[in-house]
Amino acid sequence: MKPLTEGIDNFITENLEAYIQATAQLCSQPSVSTQGEGMLDCAQMVVQLFKEHDYHADLYPTPGNPVVIARAQGQSERTLLFYNHYDVQPPEPLEMWTTPPFEPTIRDGALYARGAKDDKGELVARLAAVDAVRSANNGDLPCGVLFVVEGEEEIGSPHIAQFVQEHLDLLTCHGAIWEEGNLNRDGRPYLPLGIRGLLYVELSVRTMKIDAHSGGAHYLPNAAWRLHWALDTLKGKDERIRIPGFYDRIIPPSDLDLAYLDALPDHEAETREQYGVQEFVRGLSGKELRRAVFEPTCNIAGLTAGYRGDGLKTVIPARASAKVDFRLVPQQDPDVIFSNLRTYLDEQGFSDVKLTRLGAMWPFKMQADDPLVGLTACSGEEVYGKPSLIVPMWGGSSPIYAFAEPLGNIPVVRAGVGYWDNRTHAPNEHVRIEDFANAARHIARILTGFGEL
Amino acid sequence: MKPLTEGIDNFITENLEAYIQATAQLCSQPSVSTQGEGMLDCAQMVVQLFKEHDYHADLYPTPGNPVVIARAQGQSERTLLFYNHYDVQPPEPLEMWTTPPFEPTIRDGALYARGAKDDKGELVARLAAVDAVRSANNGDLPCGVLFVVEGEEEIGSPHIAQFVQEHLDLLTCHGAIWEEGNLNRDGRPYLPLGIRGLLYVELSVRTMKIDAHSGGAHYLPNAAWRLHWALDTLKGKDERIRIPGFYDRIIPPSDLDLAYLDALPDHEAETREQYGVQEFVRGLSGKELRRAVFEPTCNIAGLTAGYRGDGLKTVIPARASAKVDFRLVPQQDPDVIFSNLRTYLDEQGFSDVKLTRLGAMWPFKMQADDPLVGLTACSGEEVYGKPSLIVPMWGGSSPIYAFAEPLGNIPVVRAGVGYWDNRTHAPNEHVRIEDFANAARHIARILTGFGEL
Repeated sequence: MKPLTEGIDNFITENLEAYIQATAQLCSQPSVSTQGEGMLDCAQMVVQLFKEHDYHADLYPTPGNPVVIARAQGQSERTLLFYNHYDVQPPEPLEMWTTPPFEPTIRDGALYARGAKDDKGELVARLAAVDAVRSANNGDLPCGVLFVVEGEEEIGSPHIAQFVQEHLDLLTCHGAIWEEGNLNRDGRPYLPLGIRGLLYVELSVRTMKIDAHSGGAHYLPNAAWRLHWALDTLKGKDERIRIPGFYDRIIPPSDLDLAYLDALPDHEAETREQYGVQEFVRGLSGKELRRAVFEPTCNIAGLTAGYRGDGLKTVIPARASAKVDFRLVPQQDPDVIFSNLRTYLDEQGFSDVKLTRLGAMWPFKMQADDPLVGLTACSGEEVYGKPSLIVPMWGGSSPIYAFAEPLGNIPVVRAGVGYWDNRTHAPNEHVRIEDFANAARHIARILTGFGEL
Repeated sequence: MKPLTEGIDNFITENLEAYIQATAQLCSQPSVSTQGEGMLDCAQMVVQLFKEHDYHADLYPTPGNPVVIARAQGQSERTLLFYNHYDVQPPEPLEMWTTPPFEPTIRDGALYARGAKDDKGELVARLAAVDAVRSANNGDLPCGVLFVVEGEEEIGSPHIAQFVQEHLDLLTCHGAIWEEGNLNRDGRPYLPLGIRGLLYVELSVRTMKIDAHSGGAHYLPNAAWRLHWALDTLKGKDERIRIPGFYDRIIPPSDLDLAYLDALPDHEAETREQYGVQEFVRGLSGKELRRAVFEPTCNIAGLTAGYRGDGLKTVIPARASAKVDFRLVPQQDPDVIFSNLRTYLDEQGFSDVKLTRLGAMWPFKMQADDPLVGLTACSGEEVYGKPSLIVPMWGGSSPIYAFAEPLGNIPVVRAGVGYWDNRTHAPNEHVRIEDFANAARHIARILTGFGEL
């Protein structure tokens, strides 16, 4: 094994500049999915890039932007899937960029461009890793490699779940590495084992055809108060969510999950400082603050009613609405919860409150003792010289569920080029070149071991 | 008396065109108080107009726009005060006007211009009424006449109460006619005997320095929920307002007030249609719907938090705010209620909720059996051929209180040029010329009788 690792690391060192240039070239092609600009051009560039690196690669249509599938054979029967995406976030506000977002620029040891980290840099680092393994292993790969590169991640992956369902044979694999990896402030790589699901709804209510003068408030119904009372049925001050059956299917964290959670660094003081928080939800602190990620949430993401300008306007709002998101833990099902919520509102006398489903994702959780966790953690420690941060559950959401269960409950880990301050989704997005090289080294090691897991 | 009335009516008929022209000239001078345009020019035009009609007239400074005071001596000791204003609402949206708002145009028996009704037409109709009485009465007025014409009515009259307090001697009078009068759809003049007060506040709360990703909703405090729970303490679903002492000083309607209320036309079906309302507040209907105007209200006029655009954004709002107005009935005091509200929020654990006072008006209520009510109603019936609609309490608010109590609890009635569809505050504001003439006839009759009340 030692010579293989040496060969990998040497290859990456010697060819680093070429891969950074390939990343820059890909980043020079705008591909903002929410604006539609350059999507097909970028997808074709990605296909071309795979072909240049000896993959079978094709575009697959979806009702939205096409998916790029690329495949390379391996020596074992086992296949590792890489999920990435070629679309990027909008670059605005443009005036906040030091150099233009689609004119990639290297300075201070980093490549600056929209997509340099999220997710074009990640994609090219993986190409580098595969090439390095081949180079060190007489042109062969110890396991098969399958890339799925979609074009709608930044708009919520509306078609990927259906795409997976319709291409199960094409996507057969034994494990996956999700789109990215990140280092914390101490240079330790994060290794999440699960991620929460999401149900995003809008509650809206109309009590009148038109707004009215508030001099009629003694008899004309106010939509803002009506919305208020509907929201009141969702959650109490105790943070307990009141929708019937909401907590029914929840699987609590295992002892190993809790042990990993408790071993994580205490971020309480840092978070308090970052957000200027006086008191956390339910007065949480210490271990409980971290363990709370296994609790589902009901969050008001937005409220709109009536007059919102400066000063005063005496109006009874005819319409009011709230955006509400629920973060879900295994095995909560957003379909079931959405249906229960509608029934519950009706039962509580709020059949006039319109409920619109704006988004849904299912939770994902892998076993904490899966061998791929050990492989990812050990090879990460070899590259970064520090132990991974094993995070049993991540607070956000992502479409991992769309792959993991349909493909046979595969394990899904993370490894990649990020650190804690890449400015993803923001001006001056960048990837540090040293992080890029380390990510390629790390992923190459995972590839080397994956065939024999 | 009969010859006097004939002389009045003849004078108005013969000189109507000149007064309509005077109204048009005044309307051609923009005076939008919220934008500041042309205020002093308009105030000086008003002073000049009074002087041309044989008044002593002067501008009086305030911290905002000046007040015009004009005075004419009468044969009796008694003085009738007219409250009017020379400022107007903004004319926007300009494209909705058939003819430009500051180019007064006569068509279909009406004068179209911003201010034609509110309040320049009202002011000039009163000048016509006074001139008519003089003309019919050998050049004398049976009572003194005092005009107070302010320039900040459309921005909430922020300085008029203090102005009155500082000029009590100047403003000595024995009754007043408020800025306007209106006919309902059946051509009956409204005669309100009272108007509710107002306390307008903003509740705002900040739980974090910056918005956060809703993946942290299990521990980061949400300002929208915090605001929700603060609002929850204000009012229950039963519409009962929970601020301690809120109902303490209320004086219930008299039997005569209730009799007048019950005699008003039933507007339930019309209101249901106009606003598309399924169910009124507390299921009110019939007489109770009208009597409810003697109940104070707590109205959410606006809600703002987090994401309010299309689609979804998963954010924990760091800041949320609500505009809330309370309509107050005699003798509720907005100063006391504001103070009680602050104390109450503190007691309920919401000392983090910032409470800003955006406006306050005190309620006004005159005795239903005051002689000026009878004079206004009888002379109105003589002019309009229909009985007045005596409304014991109006749902809105206005600064009548700023005059009535400081000037010795004077009675304050209404009479004027309006009908139910003048488009005040809207495009194509207009005054019907026949209404203008009738208002002058009505007010002249009130003037004739007021000296002997």
